[in-house]
Amino acid sequence: MRYEEFTIEGRNAVLEAFRSGKTIDKLFVLDGCQDGPIKTITREARKHDTIINYVTKERLDQLSETKKHQGVVAFAAAYEYAQVEDMLKLAEEKGEPPFLFLLDNIEDPHNLGAIIRTANLAGAHGVIIPKRRAAGLTATVAKTSAGALNYTPVAKVTNLSAVIKELKDKGLWFVCADMDGTRMYDLDLRGPIGLVIGSEGEGVSRLVKEQCDFVASIPMKGDIDSLNASVAAGVLAYEIVRQRQ
Amino acid sequence: MRYEEFTIEGRNAVLEAFRSGKTIDKLFVLDGCQDGPIKTITREARKHDTIINYVTKERLDQLSETKKHQGVVAFAAAYEYAQVEDMLKLAEEKGEPPFLFLLDNIEDPHNLGAIIRTANLAGAHGVIIPKRRAAGLTATVAKTSAGALNYTPVAKVTNLSAVIKELKDKGLWFVCADMDGTRMYDLDLRGPIGLVIGSEGEGVSRLVKEQCDFVASIPMKGDIDSLNASVAAGVLAYEIVRQRQ
Repeated sequence: MRYEEFTIEGRNAVLEAFRSGKTIDKLFVLDGCQDGPIKTITREARKHDTIINYVTKERLDQLSETKKHQGVVAFAAAYEYAQVEDMLKLAEEKGEPPFLFLLDNIEDPHNLGAIIRTANLAGAHGVIIPKRRAAGLTATVAKTSAGALNYTPVAKVTNLSAVIKELKDKGLWFVCADMDGTRMYDLDLRGPIGLVIGSEGEGVSRLVKEQCDFVASIPMKGDIDSLNASVAAGVLAYEIVRQRQ
Repeated sequence: MRYEEFTIEGRNAVLEAFRSGKTIDKLFVLDGCQDGPIKTITREARKHDTIINYVTKERLDQLSETKKHQGVVAFAAAYEYAQVEDMLKLAEEKGEPPFLFLLDNIEDPHNLGAIIRTANLAGAHGVIIPKRRAAGLTATVAKTSAGALNYTPVAKVTNLSAVIKELKDKGLWFVCADMDGTRMYDLDLRGPIGLVIGSEGEGVSRLVKEQCDFVASIPMKGDIDSLNASVAAGVLAYEIVRQRQ
């Protein structure tokens, strides 16, 4: 599952990519362009929940490698995203209670890579990221994950809080990190669990937080506000590891 | 203690900077240039343990902002490094057993910044970094530390293992992280402690490891080798926080 990001350019190539089931991370379309083939492409994109960016010709020329983009450039991932279902199966196969990471809009690819690395080493069964407003699996993420991307499944979902709801029905508990929470040492974090990590700037979003069973806080003894997101994820993940042993 | 990195260029300016006690992070000297003033400057640099790089005229021209470098360019830190002694005093003032971070050649400025941030929030009294083969306090470090650099003292020392030896005489215990160590949960990490974090690629160096009282390991359940250095520092620091409470 070696990772390689690549661009697909031109109308036929992009349409073909969608139809063959390739994961398209982002689609760039010439602003104002509304002819038949472009409409077919944007329809496919919507069907697959791909983010569509309408951009100027100059921007498209910049993104294009061949300079023959015909008004459309797509960023595709050779890395195959997994399904949440696969992660639960993986846990079952290992005879372990499920342990998932859910990242609520982590935007920095270095943080995303470091968190996937931590998820792997903490024995988590997968990492779930949202489609919008978040870093995808770019080359930087693959590099910062130090190989973990080859082992730990990553799923991309449209609605994080809907997924949490479904997983709660399957018996998982959810804990998110926030400053106003209970000290992590005082929570029982054993059993099937989903660890929710908020974004660098804004923390966990309200809708997601409302779905969580627990809010955990990391003790802060210093002068500044918060830990780096990947460090916070590591500290919480290892509190779960400690309690699970 | 706002941080600002700047270059000092020209023979008089650089010599004056050394003599006024400014912290010079790096010195660049024209290769082959051996006249009196240059010799005086390199002598000062050696006295202050500044790293000297002999470079081509092209490289100097690149580094120079004024293009009037006269064969010498220095990188100075407006950030004032602290003394190790200050950290012990800080701990005493707070009535806490000293808790120091020692970084054995962390080369990535993002990791260095994230670790200083963690040190602040975990309640450590300071961070000690070596002069050679390590990231200094650059603008990137200041930014990644999210303000922690303004509160948590950072000292730069010539010989990390010599400093450990001195601090051991003052009653500190030292723990470093390595895969072949005792599980961190099984160690007693209370009391006056120095946490030693190894470099991204090579871990803790042999000389430093030999000085440590304990070697702690973080349980690794995954497929890859190791956590990101700043995540590992966070996980270990918070195991110390947990045991200290």
